[in-house]
Amino acid sequence: MQTTVMQAGEVSLAKWTKQIKRSALQEMLAAASRPGILSFALGLPAPEFFPAEAYAQAAAQVLANEPRALQYGPPLQVPKTHIVRLMAERGVRCSESQVLLTAGAQQGMNLLSRLLLEPGDQVIIEQKCYPGFRQVLDPFEPDILAVPTDMDTGMDVQAVESLLERGAQPSLVYAIPEGQNPLAVSMNAVKREQLVELARQWQVPIIEDDAYGFLNYNREVAKPMRALGADWVFYVGSFSKIMAPALRVGWLVVPEQFMAKLSIVKEASDIDTATFTQRIISAYLDTGELPAHLAFLRSKYQLRRDTMLDALEKHFPRAAQWRTPASGVFIWVELPDEIDTTELLRLAIETAKVAFIPGSAFCVGGGNREMNSMRLNFSNCKPDDITEGIQRLARVIQR
Amino acid sequence: MQTTVMQAGEVSLAKWTKQIKRSALQEMLAAASRPGILSFALGLPAPEFFPAEAYAQAAAQVLANEPRALQYGPPLQVPKTHIVRLMAERGVRCSESQVLLTAGAQQGMNLLSRLLLEPGDQVIIEQKCYPGFRQVLDPFEPDILAVPTDMDTGMDVQAVESLLERGAQPSLVYAIPEGQNPLAVSMNAVKREQLVELARQWQVPIIEDDAYGFLNYNREVAKPMRALGADWVFYVGSFSKIMAPALRVGWLVVPEQFMAKLSIVKEASDIDTATFTQRIISAYLDTGELPAHLAFLRSKYQLRRDTMLDALEKHFPRAAQWRTPASGVFIWVELPDEIDTTELLRLAIETAKVAFIPGSAFCVGGGNREMNSMRLNFSNCKPDDITEGIQRLARVIQR
Repeated sequence: MQTTVMQAGEVSLAKWTKQIKRSALQEMLAAASRPGILSFALGLPAPEFFPAEAYAQAAAQVLANEPRALQYGPPLQVPKTHIVRLMAERGVRCSESQVLLTAGAQQGMNLLSRLLLEPGDQVIIEQKCYPGFRQVLDPFEPDILAVPTDMDTGMDVQAVESLLERGAQPSLVYAIPEGQNPLAVSMNAVKREQLVELARQWQVPIIEDDAYGFLNYNREVAKPMRALGADWVFYVGSFSKIMAPALRVGWLVVPEQFMAKLSIVKEASDIDTATFTQRIISAYLDTGELPAHLAFLRSKYQLRRDTMLDALEKHFPRAAQWRTPASGVFIWVELPDEIDTTELLRLAIETAKVAFIPGSAFCVGGGNREMNSMRLNFSNCKPDDITEGIQRLARVIQR
Repeated sequence: MQTTVMQAGEVSLAKWTKQIKRSALQEMLAAASRPGILSFALGLPAPEFFPAEAYAQAAAQVLANEPRALQYGPPLQVPKTHIVRLMAERGVRCSESQVLLTAGAQQGMNLLSRLLLEPGDQVIIEQKCYPGFRQVLDPFEPDILAVPTDMDTGMDVQAVESLLERGAQPSLVYAIPEGQNPLAVSMNAVKREQLVELARQWQVPIIEDDAYGFLNYNREVAKPMRALGADWVFYVGSFSKIMAPALRVGWLVVPEQFMAKLSIVKEASDIDTATFTQRIISAYLDTGELPAHLAFLRSKYQLRRDTMLDALEKHFPRAAQWRTPASGVFIWVELPDEIDTTELLRLAIETAKVAFIPGSAFCVGGGNREMNSMRLNFSNCKPDDITEGIQRLARVIQR
């Protein structure tokens, strides 16, 4: 017999896992989730707007009427038909045979990275990027080419072109054209066309993350890039922000010739089966209540956005800068240079019981620059709490 | 403007995806799922035994009483506590801090492969292996070292030792010790101890896939390897076979020091959040009905197993061989050498409306050998259908 003193620590992990670290920020966010903290930190939808009763009815109905509701089975067609209709509202023409149901946008991005990416490949993302996508990339240890973002017009497409002209051969470009997370900017229509054109010209697929696309507050919304280049755009959609995150349902719209391979990537990932929550969502969509629910959400979130903008205007330092987001659930604020928002977060939690995320947390490559920015979420707090929280935060800033 | 005649086919996919092919077998299985076919093909649980009403009550209760049921939130503790108790019934002592909730066993294996595996690494699996695990391995393009399986005692642990002694440095060993899929054999207690000892000695982690561990039909069941080597065994559990597949809930039990990294691998995969279906399962487990449900399932499946064994005895050729499985949902049958079961499947579907899976589908590395074996599932058909189906199949064989 071997001695049993040997430690499990000797199990050797894949090399890329060395970069996995729980950051100081994560510790702070854990602190921020304690009761009594007013949190503008995470991109949570407002739970009070979830139509829970309608979901309960849908669940009961599915379990009572559908004998296959709990069994393995091929992906469902009905939710795909609903999704095709939803996409049409965003100006996208697609068919059921181009739609893959996922367990949310995050899984969608994972499946696409498995399909498109080799270890060490180049990828183009924005200098301030959704950290969940960087997590998707990490195991591939890619060569990240980061481009700037214009705060009024979105991703710097010129910079993408320069990279391509100088010989970059990225396996994908990742973009959030509507309500970019964290910068809250929407890419204008001209840039979307230019980016799709570059994708075509240089044969680089685009992953279009449209998690916030249905939460838009202006009359005129630019079409997703999928509407401009069906062959080069892999569209990522999600019910998490418009229905409920814990149901874990999203979708991809991809060029049809890749569906067979993608279905197998999905099958390998978690069995490509009709899930109970896909059936709940489908039953809810059958009722036809989603358009009214979306209109309701938009008006409620717009009110929260405007409440936060008003409070910022009233209470934040004059030198602070922000823009009115046309979509999504965030406002990006740049404070005077001398303010370090990581330090500010610590103070804000401790002394004012308010939380946000420092901008540096979203910076690709170290994130030493831009120590003075912050991302504020406005969807998860009630208007009075927003006013109160921004006031408290302003007091901490002005110390 | 570029011409738009360019085809999306020019999107270049990751190289490993070239090996993704829809096989002739998959086409046949699609045919086998048509109504009117008696199918022994897939490892489906019996839908008539799902306690659908209890789940409906659980769902309604969760939605009525738990405001966080639909929101993002940290993984739940209560189902982990239930899992710790369940594991104790299998002789495994573990704690909540070693349990990670997953979207089923398949996802569990994926997360572990991400944690443990580098591209091109060596892995040890059995020569007849669950195809879903091979799908998990595919993107890593690993060097597969396949070992035989003894039909009475399970995986050839001696062969594993020989590989290690001759210099193999596998990143993991994958085993299904209880009701191996597809061979339906359970590894004996001595071999389990030997394999865990080898893992310790050579510092090779074991992925123990226990998807069928709770469906055992003998009084004496060997303990999972996790009970013998907590530091070297990564245990994969699932509610799919004992509660319902479409809820997509499973779990891992892993050495505690890897939980932080594993949680982030999970977060990157699909957001590590409390899902609605985890809450349903937890609410059902709260009722305390699972032990009775398990006893019920075991007796029902044992009856189906015995019905199939009787029918095989009565109707199959004398030269055919099979064993009585102690666990799981399959019987592995070896027919006389001259029978090619792939050809037989085509005939069986066309002329007798019965389906199964040819043994060659499970063979690692081509699978040209063993053309005369078949995997039969007994959990998904009612006893009368089992008798009828085996009779029909026997007639096709005897032609």
